[in-house]
Amino acid sequence: MGKIYVFHGVNLHLLGLREPDIYGNKSLADLNARLIAMGEENGFPVECRQTNHEGEIIDWITELSPQDFLILNPGAWTHSSYALYDAIKGVKVPTIEVHISNIYAREGFRSHSVIAGACLGQISGLGTDSYLLALAYALEFQKYRYNEGAKHAEDN
Amino acid sequence: MGKIYVFHGVNLHLLGLREPDIYGNKSLADLNARLIAMGEENGFPVECRQTNHEGEIIDWITELSPQDFLILNPGAWTHSSYALYDAIKGVKVPTIEVHISNIYAREGFRSHSVIAGACLGQISGLGTDSYLLALAYALEFQKYRYNEGAKHAEDN
Amino acid sequence: MGKIYVFHGVNLHLLGLREPDIYGNKSLADLNARLIAMGEENGFPVECRQTNHEGEIIDWITELSPQDFLILNPGAWTHSSYALYDAIKGVKVPTIEVHISNIYAREGFRSHSVIAGACLGQISGLGTDSYLLALAYALEFQKYRYNEGAKHAEDN
Amino acid sequence: MGKIYVFHGVNLHLLGLREPDIYGNKSLADLNARLIAMGEENGFPVECRQTNHEGEIIDWITELSPQDFLILNPGAWTHSSYALYDAIKGVKVPTIEVHISNIYAREGFRSHSVIAGACLGQISGLGTDSYLLALAYALEFQKYRYNEGAKHAEDN
Amino acid sequence: MGKIYVFHGVNLHLLGLREPDIYGNKSLADLNARLIAMGEENGFPVECRQTNHEGEIIDWITELSPQDFLILNPGAWTHSSYALYDAIKGVKVPTIEVHISNIYAREGFRSHSVIAGACLGQISGLGTDSYLLALAYALEFQKYRYNEGAKHAEDN
Amino acid sequence: MGKIYVFHGVNLHLLGLREPDIYGNKSLADLNARLIAMGEENGFPVECRQTNHEGEIIDWITELSPQDFLILNPGAWTHSSYALYDAIKGVKVPTIEVHISNIYAREGFRSHSVIAGACLGQISGLGTDSYLLALAYALEFQKYRYNEGAKHAEDN
Amino acid sequence: MGKIYVFHGVNLHLLGLREPDIYGNKSLADLNARLIAMGEENGFPVECRQTNHEGEIIDWITELSPQDFLILNPGAWTHSSYALYDAIKGVKVPTIEVHISNIYAREGFRSHSVIAGACLGQISGLGTDSYLLALAYALEFQKYRYNEGAKHAEDN
Amino acid sequence: MGKIYVFHGVNLHLLGLREPDIYGNKSLADLNARLIAMGEENGFPVECRQTNHEGEIIDWITELSPQDFLILNPGAWTHSSYALYDAIKGVKVPTIEVHISNIYAREGFRSHSVIAGACLGQISGLGTDSYLLALAYALEFQKYRYNEGAKHAEDN
Amino acid sequence: MGKIYVFHGVNLHLLGLREPDIYGNKSLADLNARLIAMGEENGFPVECRQTNHEGEIIDWITELSPQDFLILNPGAWTHSSYALYDAIKGVKVPTIEVHISNIYAREGFRSHSVIAGACLGQISGLGTDSYLLALAYALEFQKYRYNEGAKHAEDN
Amino acid sequence: MGKIYVFHGVNLHLLGLREPDIYGNKSLADLNARLIAMGEENGFPVECRQTNHEGEIIDWITELSPQDFLILNPGAWTHSSYALYDAIKGVKVPTIEVHISNIYAREGFRSHSVIAGACLGQISGLGTDSYLLALAYALEFQKYRYNEGAKHAEDN
Amino acid sequence: MGKIYVFHGVNLHLLGLREPDIYGNKSLADLNARLIAMGEENGFPVECRQTNHEGEIIDWITELSPQDFLILNPGAWTHSSYALYDAIKGVKVPTIEVHISNIYAREGFRSHSVIAGACLGQISGLGTDSYLLALAYALEFQKYRYNEGAKHAEDN
Amino acid sequence: MGKIYVFHGVNLHLLGLREPDIYGNKSLADLNARLIAMGEENGFPVECRQTNHEGEIIDWITELSPQDFLILNPGAWTHSSYALYDAIKGVKVPTIEVHISNIYAREGFRSHSVIAGACLGQISGLGTDSYLLALAYALEFQKYRYNEGAKHAEDN
Repeated sequence: MGKIYVFHGVNLHLLGLREPDIYGNKSLADLNARLIAMGEENGFPVECRQTNHEGEIIDWITELSPQDFLILNPGAWTHSSYALYDAIKGVKVPTIEVHISNIYAREGFRSHSVIAGACLGQISGLGTDSYLLALAYALEFQKYRYNEGAKHAEDN
Repeated sequence: MGKIYVFHGVNLHLLGLREPDIYGNKSLADLNARLIAMGEENGFPVECRQTNHEGEIIDWITELSPQDFLILNPGAWTHSSYALYDAIKGVKVPTIEVHISNIYAREGFRSHSVIAGACLGQISGLGTDSYLLALAYALEFQKYRYNEGAKHAEDN
Repeated sequence: MGKIYVFHGVNLHLLGLREPDIYGNKSLADLNARLIAMGEENGFPVECRQTNHEGEIIDWITELSPQDFLILNPGAWTHSSYALYDAIKGVKVPTIEVHISNIYAREGFRSHSVIAGACLGQISGLGTDSYLLALAYALEFQKYRYNEGAKHAEDN
Repeated sequence: MGKIYVFHGVNLHLLGLREPDIYGNKSLADLNARLIAMGEENGFPVECRQTNHEGEIIDWITELSPQDFLILNPGAWTHSSYALYDAIKGVKVPTIEVHISNIYAREGFRSHSVIAGACLGQISGLGTDSYLLALAYALEFQKYRYNEGAKHAEDN
Repeated sequence: MGKIYVFHGVNLHLLGLREPDIYGNKSLADLNARLIAMGEENGFPVECRQTNHEGEIIDWITELSPQDFLILNPGAWTHSSYALYDAIKGVKVPTIEVHISNIYAREGFRSHSVIAGACLGQISGLGTDSYLLALAYALEFQKYRYNEGAKHAEDN
Repeated sequence: MGKIYVFHGVNLHLLGLREPDIYGNKSLADLNARLIAMGEENGFPVECRQTNHEGEIIDWITELSPQDFLILNPGAWTHSSYALYDAIKGVKVPTIEVHISNIYAREGFRSHSVIAGACLGQISGLGTDSYLLALAYALEFQKYRYNEGAKHAEDN
Repeated sequence: MGKIYVFHGVNLHLLGLREPDIYGNKSLADLNARLIAMGEENGFPVECRQTNHEGEIIDWITELSPQDFLILNPGAWTHSSYALYDAIKGVKVPTIEVHISNIYAREGFRSHSVIAGACLGQISGLGTDSYLLALAYALEFQKYRYNEGAKHAEDN
Repeated sequence: MGKIYVFHGVNLHLLGLREPDIYGNKSLADLNARLIAMGEENGFPVECRQTNHEGEIIDWITELSPQDFLILNPGAWTHSSYALYDAIKGVKVPTIEVHISNIYAREGFRSHSVIAGACLGQISGLGTDSYLLALAYALEFQKYRYNEGAKHAEDN
Repeated sequence: MGKIYVFHGVNLHLLGLREPDIYGNKSLADLNARLIAMGEENGFPVECRQTNHEGEIIDWITELSPQDFLILNPGAWTHSSYALYDAIKGVKVPTIEVHISNIYAREGFRSHSVIAGACLGQISGLGTDSYLLALAYALEFQKYRYNEGAKHAEDN
Repeated sequence: MGKIYVFHGVNLHLLGLREPDIYGNKSLADLNARLIAMGEENGFPVECRQTNHEGEIIDWITELSPQDFLILNPGAWTHSSYALYDAIKGVKVPTIEVHISNIYAREGFRSHSVIAGACLGQISGLGTDSYLLALAYALEFQKYRYNEGAKHAEDN
Repeated sequence: MGKIYVFHGVNLHLLGLREPDIYGNKSLADLNARLIAMGEENGFPVECRQTNHEGEIIDWITELSPQDFLILNPGAWTHSSYALYDAIKGVKVPTIEVHISNIYAREGFRSHSVIAGACLGQISGLGTDSYLLALAYALEFQKYRYNEGAKHAEDN
Repeated sequence: MGKIYVFHGVNLHLLGLREPDIYGNKSLADLNARLIAMGEENGFPVECRQTNHEGEIIDWITELSPQDFLILNPGAWTHSSYALYDAIKGVKVPTIEVHISNIYAREGFRSHSVIAGACLGQISGLGTDSYLLALAYALEFQKYRYNEGAKHAEDN
């Protein structure tokens, strides 16, 4: 049974500290705790990590297996990292791109995601609830895969 | 207590009929039934409508009250309707823009939403689950507003 | 003797209600009353209409006769409706495009009118006075046409 | 046996009235009569409609069946209506886009059709003969389908 | 009590002489006389100036006081003079930009005003009546300010 | 009495051989035979030529007389040959541009024709029937010119 | 009999002093002397002026009469002065735009002249000979006009 | 002693025949005769050629020697032929680009020359006099080279 | 057994003569000799051709058979010839695009190849060694195909 | 020994008066006094001038000698004056471009300087301290030149 | 009392080694020594660091406190790192962006800084003196803050 | 004697694992083994490294000596890393850029390399043979340098 990963990209360790009018004032630790708890309640391990090093997040992603699920907030890499795009495409892990703020309603450069094309979908603008909704989706997705797999195993 | 509206824009009456590889094969009626049921379970009326007439959807939106919540799939209007943008901005109803397919991974013209800037946020690419997640968010949003209001009333 | 028409486009029924810092707080009914009164004082009937349906405004325009005069606030259609452009060009009714706000000092998409090329001229940014000035011009224009016509008739 | 539809888009009711140097002076009624007669001579019903309401033409298109054939002059919607593009793609009715004038030899905005990608092909610039040639093609197309179908039926 | 200024920019001394099909054949002197007379009738001094020197018009503008009102036809500076934009923004004099011809229906370079963003509004395409309408607005604006000021003074 | 010419541009000698999913599998010889036969049935000589040399096609075009009619498939020259545009404009021979595939539904570079502006009109996307429809039009056009000319001659 | 004017625009007083590898090392005075002498030899007065003030050159141009001929090196105004374009168009004096260097083979911003559209033609890249060739043309042009005029006068 | 070549590019054999309002009505033969005569008067052979084949003009250019001088009217190749640019750069023959019409005052595509960067300079818009002025320059250029060379030879 | 072709495009006959700092000073004959010898050593005939005529190179390419291999230096056609792109796509001959200079480190227009999309790959910037490496690849490619084919034949 | 010049461009006479939130509230006279004093302390004359006339500042610049040093705040000319660029390049006076506000963090048009390419460097965004830092640099630069020169003179 | 940090971005360890004509030949160690000494003379600790890892510099920046001051040379990250922009905005440390060379006078990609909008200001083109001037500013800035703070403390 | 380095950039550790239809199914270890063996056969040490950290590859490159040779596959950094461009330019190590797939025949963003301008040349689209050809070139390059150097040493 695969794991659900939540990878927070560059500058997201500042969550709750920086620009609270845009990003809210809940800390990253609080958010992670909430996500892990929600995973546990549903019987799925959730693992959260943050890094400011693009190379590190690519190492992490390319070590995932297709059974896993990824919730990814790429931060400012959203707008320039073709390497992230390639990494996600390469490992074929189902991925949801999340954004805390509505990237389509801010500075011009924020309105284009070079990563979206490699993802299942995108949730943006709903504060840290963007993560919670993504996790809700991920849990359904994994349950379905797991149960199908289980039934399949039983059937054989 | 405001109502939750789900407005399906142009061509969405074809859901389940057209291009099932992109849009799935659940019909619009099925989807609406599911959304209404989910509203009922949570004690909130949900009302769903579809139209191919841009003028009609603008009439509908501009008749909403700020107490309401809007889940909007603008279909192809996403890419050209400044009038929708103005309507949403004008009535100040909290709005989530949803898309069934990942608009950022298709033809070029689909990768720009002129409406996003007037919305709280956006959920795209998760099939009809894009609507369900939006509704989950809307229910929390309305509960919070309603309870706060209720408490407020009690306090006075 | 032709009539003077004032057609208010999409979302203008919200006048006085929405974003009063941009559009002021006089209602559309107030504005229309003032325009009609000003027409009456000058002996010219003024007829005001509003619609959110682009097709309807095109029906209206294409039913005008060249003897009429049109004051048109196209709202957000300003920025995308080539159909309006064609309609005005087709019927050859003298037309002034009006805008309540200074469209050239707002969001980028507002700074281009695809309709201007089919109009006599444009008045923008002077609040609802944009309409009043347009009507002042229209009254002079019609008086001149009417009197010339009258003289012409007398001469024959 | 499917029907052949001719849908005239926005402002085409002005045919023969507006800008005769560009659009000729045959009226829409004359053109329709000619198309219907030509259909009859070939044993195929031809139905013609015109509307200035984009929503209405989308209603009409999405009610067609794949057995039908569509000849569509989108008027100014040619240059902006992604909704029309989606509608035609959705119903999979074979469609020819026609234009009376040579849209590639006029104002800049006219030289791009957002609809062409959803159509079989395009005929432009040959006056109302653009329609007649499209109908000639449609008749051959339908005869072939019908006869193949008939033979098929006989064979079984 | 502030003054109403009418500044004619570059090449406008040619009015009535050059390209009469575009600019009409009334001379600048005639126009000025008419504007001054209209000011006098309303009890407000109007002062008109013309220059081909961008530096001179900036000198003039930056010597105005906020009590004044400016009607400005920037001629071809409309399309390139960020200095004019800065000058108007700097002195905070209420300003209307006027154009004799419809700048949005001519050569491409004319369809963008870099000055509009610093003005109250814009009137274009109505021949020399563009000035008269602007003056009508200016007179109302100044009367209102003056009377308010007067009442204010009386009240104290 | 002028002649009807069909000029096939660059790479069209590959017809029926290359990429049959796009261009069909009828050979150029077959197509030419059909066009010539159709001309003969209508009493008009049709002459077909193909070349991969842009200079040669320009030689051919500039040797035509205004009494002739040209059906031209420019192949890839469509997208870059201003020289072809000038040649057609120069000789004033009525010309229809034809394309076998729907150039507006393929790679980006194919969606712009630099030649269209010099032609009467364009037929694209209808397979080799694009030629047949063009010829049908050409035959009507020439009959009309010829008969008018004949009548004219008789009248004098 | 009109006069031939040579107006040197901004920074051309530096001729022979600045960047001799691009502009040569003949001074402006030398060049003017040569142009005046060449005029005298042909019986036509030539008058040369230089200014760094755009307003001044526009004053000069708009004082010319249609009988005159203008040779104009606009210097860096070439790339931004719509005011110069309007001035030349306004006075209808036949004008040749000259450039010492080949503006199309230098920095990007130099490869566009906003003035060219108002001129008869352009000579660039031939050093100060660009002026001499322009003058040769101007002399022929004026002789032709003068002689025609003279003959005309004699004929009457 | 090098020769002076005049190469007329694509469609220029139509000179005097096509679009006389733009290109005048002197034929290419007339123009060539005049250029050859002018060469003879000055003791320099002038050779004129025309072709519609880009490959041929490149063959011709790349056979020139640096002692020669080239006057080149590239016709529509001006706007697209990087091959011509390379050929001129490769052989290092001094070249003047000429145009009969003012290419900067016509359709958009004509306002960019991809060849200019490889030439000494450019003369455009002066009718066939563009060639004569270019030849006047070429003659001076060659005389200077020849005399210098001659003196040089004498000196040794 | 197919042949290996080396086609040198426009201006490449100047190799070793023109701009030796960019293209080196080995002549085209030397290069061809080396390529032919290398082919012989490996038991594969190599045939080299050069032309300045785009039509001719297209004739050559479209006469190749899929068993052949093509090494193509398109010269300046690289940047504009959609016809070459179509020809290569049409015949399905495996093709390597070679460039002597690093086209991505020169003038802007050189940094885009419209042909690359039809080729296996591209080698640029390594002087005439770009050809030798391409030939090394071609020899391996052909040996593999030939041996597979031979084995295949033996097997049957 | 050269002089240090500080030229303030268009609208800078408004310093301290206009938009104090952007430009501060120190007047131009105060700033100049401070710069002159700082020059005196270091034994170098500093001369400050302001003008709204582009022609005048070009006159001033082109009268400088290479021994001088220029500190230039071009105001809004920064974004459009190629003439200033040419003037600075022409006289080869070492120049620092200064801006009071951070031009890269304001309206779009302000983020491009057409003058920067002709200057040594640029200091922006540090209020009037931008000038002081530029002067500190200029003083070092001039001391170094002067001392080198002096030593040189002594050595000879 | 905050500290002054000097962060050198990617490739700046090559200072004095690479491309001395652009970057000078003083080593990074020399520069740092000079900056530290200048800090000491003024009683402020200065700390210098260099890294080629974008993630590391973001770690460093996001660990700063608002009392600190940052002098940042982002090297090539200037042109693409939205992550750096976000980091600086997030921590609100006053920052000056410095560049050794005049980035506005080099290759095109260098003329846009995506970081400038998050900084106080920018100093570029003055060699390593760009750092010294930035430090001079930083020292004044910190002294002012410190003294104000000290006075404040004393006052309480 | 310098060494030959092969640096594989971001995501290339996935070689043989990810998207085998694009990148083949040979692993990175296999490829490296083959490259090292080929080096050994030729008497040149080859060292291969891979990293997903842009900072690390820049550290590696800037530690090379000009005697070395670099074969670099930058992966997705190709399209955005100006830092890599600067690093290669800075150390002056001869470098070949290689790509496994034909980057010019894929998604739009892949068709531009910001690194190419700093390299000798580029080989793309030939699968892992792109590396082998690059190594063949590198071996010749190094042999030549080494032998020249050796001879040089012997000569002295």
